[in-house]
Amino acid sequence: MEESRVTLHGFWASPYVCKVIWALKLKGVPFEYVEENLSDKSAALLEYNPVHKKVPVLVHGGKAVAESAVILEYIEETWPDRDNPLLPADPYDRALARFWIDFGQQKRLTFMAFFLSAEEDKERTGKQVLDTLRIIQDEALADKKFFSGNKIGLVDLSYGWLVHWIECVQDIVGLPIMEPHSLQKLCEWATNFRQEPVIKENLPDKMEVAAHIRRFRERFASKTRTST
Amino acid sequence: MEESRVTLHGFWASPYVCKVIWALKLKGVPFEYVEENLSDKSAALLEYNPVHKKVPVLVHGGKAVAESAVILEYIEETWPDRDNPLLPADPYDRALARFWIDFGQQKRLTFMAFFLSAEEDKERTGKQVLDTLRIIQDEALADKKFFSGNKIGLVDLSYGWLVHWIECVQDIVGLPIMEPHSLQKLCEWATNFRQEPVIKENLPDKMEVAAHIRRFRERFASKTRTST
Repeated sequence: MEESRVTLHGFWASPYVCKVIWALKLKGVPFEYVEENLSDKSAALLEYNPVHKKVPVLVHGGKAVAESAVILEYIEETWPDRDNPLLPADPYDRALARFWIDFGQQKRLTFMAFFLSAEEDKERTGKQVLDTLRIIQDEALADKKFFSGNKIGLVDLSYGWLVHWIECVQDIVGLPIMEPHSLQKLCEWATNFRQEPVIKENLPDKMEVAAHIRRFRERFASKTRTST
Repeated sequence: MEESRVTLHGFWASPYVCKVIWALKLKGVPFEYVEENLSDKSAALLEYNPVHKKVPVLVHGGKAVAESAVILEYIEETWPDRDNPLLPADPYDRALARFWIDFGQQKRLTFMAFFLSAEEDKERTGKQVLDTLRIIQDEALADKKFFSGNKIGLVDLSYGWLVHWIECVQDIVGLPIMEPHSLQKLCEWATNFRQEPVIKENLPDKMEVAAHIRRFRERFASKTRTST
């Protein structure tokens, strides 16, 4: 049926796109995937997301939803699937989940500063990333298997970039952070998360992610050199 | 009943706190208000919000919820009040509301840059604020009375700082932005919003807000001078 058709505009290496793919797969929602060229975005993407002009954009029955956190809530509300909810039922538990999703978003600049840090800044920015990850581990994850308990939920999907992406970033910057000796529980979570079939089958190749991140960082560095 | 007691830890001049007060009042939820001294925060606040250590914090039956956007969703889910919903029922309309709430949060730094701008930067930062407000006006409000239609909803509460606060800021910076000739519909929205009884009765005094914002800006400027 045309009115229930689901299309996702994405980019293969984006963790924001991956979390939408994971949510749709966990819900068993069939969808068409449109890979965007971020240097030459499609007219459809620009029309669907005129404000941010970014992926991911989910189009459902001709109506577009943008911003990954908003899309995840939309998916949960549109296909609630009581046997496999991605948010808990209790309003307080839902508030806690949203608090931690929001926390990760608020810390974007902390992670970005580490990712783009020059050699002389990496220890300082790396310390800020470690402090942030410790809060996530100690306050949000604690002793649970997943952030939501025994099953993957929206908070787990939102922190999905702690698998692959942060590992690639720390390799490139040259400062290990997400390591069992300093973040044992978070590393165990990453192992559990990666092993879930839907995640495992829908993770981009790590070597390719690393190569992409390296190119992105070099382009940024060369732009910074040109502009100074 | 102790288990249903509602307490809000706030600060009188914070628009983030005001939007929680407005939501509770719109829902008719009785609550106790605890004014915090932001230079000497209460032990309760630090215990309830150890991550951000900020107001607002809503405590309901002994459980604390922090971050205003999260609190607003919690209020809506805990006291749904079908006759006076603060979010629409349809998942797509809810996604649109969340998109615009998120947009306002993403633009915090744009507004902060204007608020803290030195004389030589005010035109540049003011232009960015105007461009952002035009997007909010043209894309989110359009020809509606309120962002959600004919009744106040979560998006309206989230943009409540466009009443009072931005007017005070532009007076202090010395560059008018929120003016009928450039943002006619948004100014009409502000007039309508301000006239709603719950808002009108729970808006801090504008002169006092202006004095508070002026002190805050001067403290920031003096800190910046000291650190350079």
